[in-house]
Amino acid sequence: MDNEQLNKIRHSTEHVLTMAMRKFYPKMKMAMGPATDDGFYFDVDLGDKKITEADFPKIEKEMWRLINLSLPIEKEEHIIPEIRHFFKNNEYKQEWLDAIEQKGEKSTVYWIGKGTKDEFVDLCAGPHVENTKEIGAFKLLSVAGAYWHGDEKNKMLTRIYGTAFATKEELQKYLQMMEEAKRRDHRLLNKELDFFSQNEDLGSGLVLWHPKLSTVREEIELWWRKEHRKKGYEYVYTPHIGKKLLWDLSGHTGFYKDLMYPPMKDERNDIYYVKPMNCNGHILIYKSKQRSYKEMPVRFCELGTVYRYELEGVRHGILRPRGFTQDDSHIFCTQEQLISEVEGVLDFALEMNKVFGFDDLHYELSVHDPKDKEKYAGKPEDWEMAENTLRQILQKRGVHFTEDPGGAKFYGPSIDLKAKDAIGRLWQGTTIQFDFNLPTRFDLTYTDKDGQEKRPYMVHRTLLGSFERFMGVLIEQYAGAFPVWLSHTQAVIIPISDKFTAYAQSIKEKLETNNIRVELDARDESMQKRIREAEKQKVPYMLVVGEKEEKEQTVAVRQRGRKDLGVMNFAKFIEIIKADIEEKKIW
Amino acid sequence: MDNEQLNKIRHSTEHVLTMAMRKFYPKMKMAMGPATDDGFYFDVDLGDKKITEADFPKIEKEMWRLINLSLPIEKEEHIIPEIRHFFKNNEYKQEWLDAIEQKGEKSTVYWIGKGTKDEFVDLCAGPHVENTKEIGAFKLLSVAGAYWHGDEKNKMLTRIYGTAFATKEELQKYLQMMEEAKRRDHRLLNKELDFFSQNEDLGSGLVLWHPKLSTVREEIELWWRKEHRKKGYEYVYTPHIGKKLLWDLSGHTGFYKDLMYPPMKDERNDIYYVKPMNCNGHILIYKSKQRSYKEMPVRFCELGTVYRYELEGVRHGILRPRGFTQDDSHIFCTQEQLISEVEGVLDFALEMNKVFGFDDLHYELSVHDPKDKEKYAGKPEDWEMAENTLRQILQKRGVHFTEDPGGAKFYGPSIDLKAKDAIGRLWQGTTIQFDFNLPTRFDLTYTDKDGQEKRPYMVHRTLLGSFERFMGVLIEQYAGAFPVWLSHTQAVIIPISDKFTAYAQSIKEKLETNNIRVELDARDESMQKRIREAEKQKVPYMLVVGEKEEKEQTVAVRQRGRKDLGVMNFAKFIEIIKADIEEKKIW
Repeated sequence: MDNEQLNKIRHSTEHVLTMAMRKFYPKMKMAMGPATDDGFYFDVDLGDKKITEADFPKIEKEMWRLINLSLPIEKEEHIIPEIRHFFKNNEYKQEWLDAIEQKGEKSTVYWIGKGTKDEFVDLCAGPHVENTKEIGAFKLLSVAGAYWHGDEKNKMLTRIYGTAFATKEELQKYLQMMEEAKRRDHRLLNKELDFFSQNEDLGSGLVLWHPKLSTVREEIELWWRKEHRKKGYEYVYTPHIGKKLLWDLSGHTGFYKDLMYPPMKDERNDIYYVKPMNCNGHILIYKSKQRSYKEMPVRFCELGTVYRYELEGVRHGILRPRGFTQDDSHIFCTQEQLISEVEGVLDFALEMNKVFGFDDLHYELSVHDPKDKEKYAGKPEDWEMAENTLRQILQKRGVHFTEDPGGAKFYGPSIDLKAKDAIGRLWQGTTIQFDFNLPTRFDLTYTDKDGQEKRPYMVHRTLLGSFERFMGVLIEQYAGAFPVWLSHTQAVIIPISDKFTAYAQSIKEKLETNNIRVELDARDESMQKRIREAEKQKVPYMLVVGEKEEKEQTVAVRQRGRKDLGVMNFAKFIEIIKADIEEKKIW
Repeated sequence: MDNEQLNKIRHSTEHVLTMAMRKFYPKMKMAMGPATDDGFYFDVDLGDKKITEADFPKIEKEMWRLINLSLPIEKEEHIIPEIRHFFKNNEYKQEWLDAIEQKGEKSTVYWIGKGTKDEFVDLCAGPHVENTKEIGAFKLLSVAGAYWHGDEKNKMLTRIYGTAFATKEELQKYLQMMEEAKRRDHRLLNKELDFFSQNEDLGSGLVLWHPKLSTVREEIELWWRKEHRKKGYEYVYTPHIGKKLLWDLSGHTGFYKDLMYPPMKDERNDIYYVKPMNCNGHILIYKSKQRSYKEMPVRFCELGTVYRYELEGVRHGILRPRGFTQDDSHIFCTQEQLISEVEGVLDFALEMNKVFGFDDLHYELSVHDPKDKEKYAGKPEDWEMAENTLRQILQKRGVHFTEDPGGAKFYGPSIDLKAKDAIGRLWQGTTIQFDFNLPTRFDLTYTDKDGQEKRPYMVHRTLLGSFERFMGVLIEQYAGAFPVWLSHTQAVIIPISDKFTAYAQSIKEKLETNNIRVELDARDESMQKRIREAEKQKVPYMLVVGEKEEKEQTVAVRQRGRKDLGVMNFAKFIEIIKADIEEKKIW
């Protein structure tokens, strides 16, 4: 099944949902309803009526009745005055119609079962399937609130989520995946594992990292820095705030203002902004001295925390926070170096993703939307050059990629990688952006071999994306059970009784000498209970010790989620756990 | 010589300076002039006249003339109306007089040589020496601008710095120290060593860390985290911004607003502030779940970057920046644990300072100023209890300490440590604050053994202070020549000629395998020049390799600032440099 057909099925199912709902909510006003990557949703104004998931069975029944009528779905094109009467008393549709009319365009409507007693018409760009019988399987999933146009200042509408497929088997597979996704939901796992918190008094979309998740981050940071040093990157630190002037110069206040936090401003002095990107700081370091071709490429990297005023509606746990730390880098290079630098970053991204078990990466080329000129800095011919450069790099690698028009940042196009997780979902992580604008805006130069001042190119890139988002993805990827190298507690020692606490303490100290993070659980609780709790806390190793173990200097090893590994020499266990850590094993 | 007498000498010398200047600037208006820790300064409005250091000799000559007259210095007490006429046409002194009068107080004036043709009077609280002949030695040092009351909105006055001592020998010793301080000035060394930059477009007081200094910071951070883990601290990460409500709750917007950056505010939503302290984030993590006595003390630590809107006048390179990263921690503990927690932090601070060569620490107890009630949160009896607790801890340790009334933060008193650097200057670093206010403001609790909800105490502490400031101090402490473990480049390899580049490369790789940061300088320059440049860049080791070394697998080792260590087996050199790093040797 290709995506286009799936998309049609889902969109048509959404129309059938609307048809069915007329029966139960005759006064409802439909607002909008698109197909999405994994289903569809329908935004509707129910007036003073309510809907809950308990209402789904009767609605689904009515939908099946309509589908089974094998109603034709037909497209018609009209000028606006001809169709306004279809949407009487519906201010949402009238608003759409006004907008289309203002642009002087015609509009399409889709009919289902035209001329029958169930006939239904909606303003819609389509496309749709030709007959309701093409809808093989569907399910309504949940109800939520959603602001009209996603804007908190507008009215809150009711949103109904659902999904649809060509066959029942596909639907079944999808629902199983959803179940699994729920089991892995980082927000639910967080309740047991105490990874992070968010707090409305602090600010929505801001993340407080608790000790356990901080350890995961710290380990990744250490390793990330080492790998970057090996690859010729230099670490820098830059401030989180900067004067307005600076953001005016870079174009952020012009092109990116909606995503910036408000300006800091009072009677005292200059206006400052908290940074939405790290580029300006790195650019100022580049510019702090005269650069020569001998030092190019200059690769600055930083785990830089940025703040973006994302809309309430698009946030989801820590997957799309407002404050987040990017594993960022800016590479300043000559024209000749550009392609090999981008290729180097791509290789680096593949390596780094692989360490977390992300072997399957989907490539996307985010390009500018030529219809939306005011969203982008720079000249059309430069955009074409930049996009072609990235396109050719992907073509040369022979990888499949899709293009996303309008996905580019204001300063240049990018190659984006989406990683497929353990249950088949795609997560955007790596982005490699080719910037031909900021070097000009900041008048960056280097002295070339021939003594001439030349303009460098810039590559902006993150490999993991943001730590907050990536950590949300990792929690779901591992269902909370982090590999040993990332676990906050790598082993817990459980003495069978009081008598063996001294031995337990001695092996704890030996493990700590080997830089292993270990806890001693000598509570007066049954061994089984302590094992159960360690399992629940996803501790990779549980070491049970009693008389036999003390006498023989051994440990009884239990591996998280598996059976006993049996009693083994303590030195042997140290070897095993150290190998887990050094090789970053995933099990 | 006790400090009190030295203080008198300096203050009297400042009066003599004023007397002498009347001769050359008859229309000048004196504003103020105190003694300081290392001399004195005099702020004066010279009208349209100028002064430069070239004018110092003639002024000093006139000062000596006055001193050699052995003029008596006498104090008189007056009500304000009796003395206003002494300061006719001097709006600065009249402003002082107004302020004193408003408080309904009398004022003291000091006469020098009253009744002689040189007689001089100034409004002054004193104290002073009794006769100008007690001034044994002095020197005028520099001229700068200074705003009246330190406020940028006021008029810019002329400030003349000088110093004075009881003897010529002491002055000489001080001037030598000043010379040495100049040689170590982190701002001057930065020009050669490219450690950092500051940029007015970004914002004054904000620091851009360049790669070399970032490496120093990174090494300190890694070690700091390890040591904290060993001591039972847990690392957390918290956002740099927070809603106004939060800072209202903690009392920062009430007591600390002048030092906060302006609020972030526009038509979109809530008001946010960039954080001036890390406490609130840690408090929210503490509060994110119910705490039990079993987990106390809870010790959260973070390298947290904060922003404080310090006045322009008090900044100095990176020693007093506006954006800085504190090596912060907040300890939540029971009343019984409080003393041992503070003692533990004190021990930790001593250990950590020692690693950088700061063995001599001066203790200060910063207490509240009972006259300035509105500056402090909480009840007087709680302040007394908190101050007594800290005082007793210091007394029990048997260390000498001074008290600084008014030095406390708004939420509690503190023990502050000042570290004496290589040339005898004192730098404030460690601060340990006892907070009995924020736990109440945030209604923090823990469940005690008896099932009762109790209020914890909080200890706020930084050991190094801020990374920016500490790094400025370290650059001066080491005169830019960092110990091996902190050096960005730990060794540079210099092949005598092209022929030995391959061998040089092979030892470079071996050093890198041993995690040593090394560079190969195979430029077509003389060996002497390359050694000279490495010395200038303060690289700890220079390894020269030629035919003999390649044949024998040796290296000719030169240690920074010292003579040749001679040719040695390469393996032996690795041992030496690894010992330098592991033991954090300072040489």
